[in-house]
Amino acid sequence: MSKTFKRIVLASRPEGAVTPANFRLEEVPVPQIADGQVLVRNHYLSLDPYMRGRMNDSKSYAAPQPLDEVMIGGTVGEVVESRNSKFKPGDKVVGMFGWQEMGVSDGTGLQPVDTTHIPLSAYLGSVGMPGVTAWYGLNKIILPKPGKTIAVSAASGAVGSVVGQLAKLAGCRAVGFAGGKDKCDYVVNELGFDACIDYKAAKDPKELYKMLKEATPDGIDGYFENVGGDILDAVLTRMNAFGRIAMCGMIAGYDGQPLPLKNPQLILVSRLTIEGFIVSEHMEVWPQALKELGTAVAQGKLKFRESIAEGLASAPEAFIGLLKGKNFGKQLVKLV
Amino acid sequence: MSKTFKRIVLASRPEGAVTPANFRLEEVPVPQIADGQVLVRNHYLSLDPYMRGRMNDSKSYAAPQPLDEVMIGGTVGEVVESRNSKFKPGDKVVGMFGWQEMGVSDGTGLQPVDTTHIPLSAYLGSVGMPGVTAWYGLNKIILPKPGKTIAVSAASGAVGSVVGQLAKLAGCRAVGFAGGKDKCDYVVNELGFDACIDYKAAKDPKELYKMLKEATPDGIDGYFENVGGDILDAVLTRMNAFGRIAMCGMIAGYDGQPLPLKNPQLILVSRLTIEGFIVSEHMEVWPQALKELGTAVAQGKLKFRESIAEGLASAPEAFIGLLKGKNFGKQLVKLV
Repeated sequence: MSKTFKRIVLASRPEGAVTPANFRLEEVPVPQIADGQVLVRNHYLSLDPYMRGRMNDSKSYAAPQPLDEVMIGGTVGEVVESRNSKFKPGDKVVGMFGWQEMGVSDGTGLQPVDTTHIPLSAYLGSVGMPGVTAWYGLNKIILPKPGKTIAVSAASGAVGSVVGQLAKLAGCRAVGFAGGKDKCDYVVNELGFDACIDYKAAKDPKELYKMLKEATPDGIDGYFENVGGDILDAVLTRMNAFGRIAMCGMIAGYDGQPLPLKNPQLILVSRLTIEGFIVSEHMEVWPQALKELGTAVAQGKLKFRESIAEGLASAPEAFIGLLKGKNFGKQLVKLV
Repeated sequence: MSKTFKRIVLASRPEGAVTPANFRLEEVPVPQIADGQVLVRNHYLSLDPYMRGRMNDSKSYAAPQPLDEVMIGGTVGEVVESRNSKFKPGDKVVGMFGWQEMGVSDGTGLQPVDTTHIPLSAYLGSVGMPGVTAWYGLNKIILPKPGKTIAVSAASGAVGSVVGQLAKLAGCRAVGFAGGKDKCDYVVNELGFDACIDYKAAKDPKELYKMLKEATPDGIDGYFENVGGDILDAVLTRMNAFGRIAMCGMIAGYDGQPLPLKNPQLILVSRLTIEGFIVSEHMEVWPQALKELGTAVAQGKLKFRESIAEGLASAPEAFIGLLKGKNFGKQLVKLV
């Protein structure tokens, strides 16, 4: 086994868009583990939009990512050395080791996973945090009912793809937003959504609204928001009375752009409920959600797609691409 | 008894601000009542912001007010003639007869009220629709808990004054927004709020935010919105995690002005819940709410103030004043 491993730390905070210079690749010695600890070799690193928020030094729901420390991130890997009776070498585990090839843990937050019917990487996607995020927003906020129309932005992504498929399994009409014809085709033909709006094909907010209107002849009853901006404005106008909106992300404003909501009056006119949430604050639903998601993936009822970048050094580039919507499906970095 | 009475109909729809020319005063014969009907002489007409929305011919939660028909409105009055066994002359009743001195009803929607301990006019305010509106938004959406901070806009008005006083009775810190020193003094000294922000004294949104920050040292946990615009922007920035907002009115945008919400990201960052509501869609709470409100008024725990315009002909002017915040407390028109 190599005596060193690679990791990526936050070198500086972005001013506006993230650049590769905000990160620094380091090589460090593999540590000796102490009694009770395990050493894990990470196979995949998850890249997620929430990381962008952590890079800022501003008030948010979580503390900022400290400078010169390993970037936060979810990982899946394999125990290579254990001095903890709960783990043995070869165990597959999900953890939060961040942007690095190896990690040491006392077992806290380390979850053994079964890869018999579910691929290891899925535990970072449909059967992991993004999947539970979709499950929570849909089942605890939107409250889908058969025959209702549920819309979701970033529909081909790790979260949005699960939202729409779960909505279909619940008997709803599922309508997605995605950027580009390829993603929209995938959302409809592979994931089984009823319609998908290519927001990049709309030349202005008026045309976007028109496209949405055509795709939602009965209006929208529930909306899962990952993006914000023009899409949210269009959706608000199409919301039916007593509609419900789960506010999960606003990637369109992550670089600090103003992102005003044009017509907040519609919240009143249509008697909407809007709720912002962070899935890590609702740990009580994780066991049930993961069980349902795992079953659906194992049975082939919940499909997913991954964009895989090769090697830790490619992580910054892949992350910047993710923020621009260049990924197609769950963005991962393959580390080993 | 006079053989005619006066009424006011909607003559034209406003383009922008409401003007007296949008209304027309008419004199019509007192009708003969049929079997099962009652004739009521209205003593007070209630003027409320929701009427502005009805004057537009646009999609909203309620059908537009038809042209050339009596303007919608709540009234209290006295039965003067009855061919309905449930009512007798002299009965005091609450109804929705609109902007007119008399009205005929088959009893539907007509509610006898007891004026022993509660003045008749209060049934159009604290013990009527505005009171129940406050009660619903506070108790069903904001969910006040002792020690929490509850803010409300239009705090000296019919709804806002009840929100803050109920919040105080629930053990909360109550902070209001009102226009002008007189209203703010009243809100703090008479109604017992902990603080009131004179939004008219703020020269820009930044100063408004500063004033709000001083008045809410522990942030805001619940907000009852009657106004929208700059006040809502400032409040959103002060909301604590898991804060709850009841969206009741957006009077600042009633004339069609754009009223964008500057930072919808805060809904996510602070995991807020925002809910728009119309009190008439929650009739199930009215009996309990009216009972609690009536008891509080009779016991002197719930104070209110009224602006009374004299005579039906003064209604348009008084209504236009209400929309500009010229009233002080519940706006009524005394008809008899």
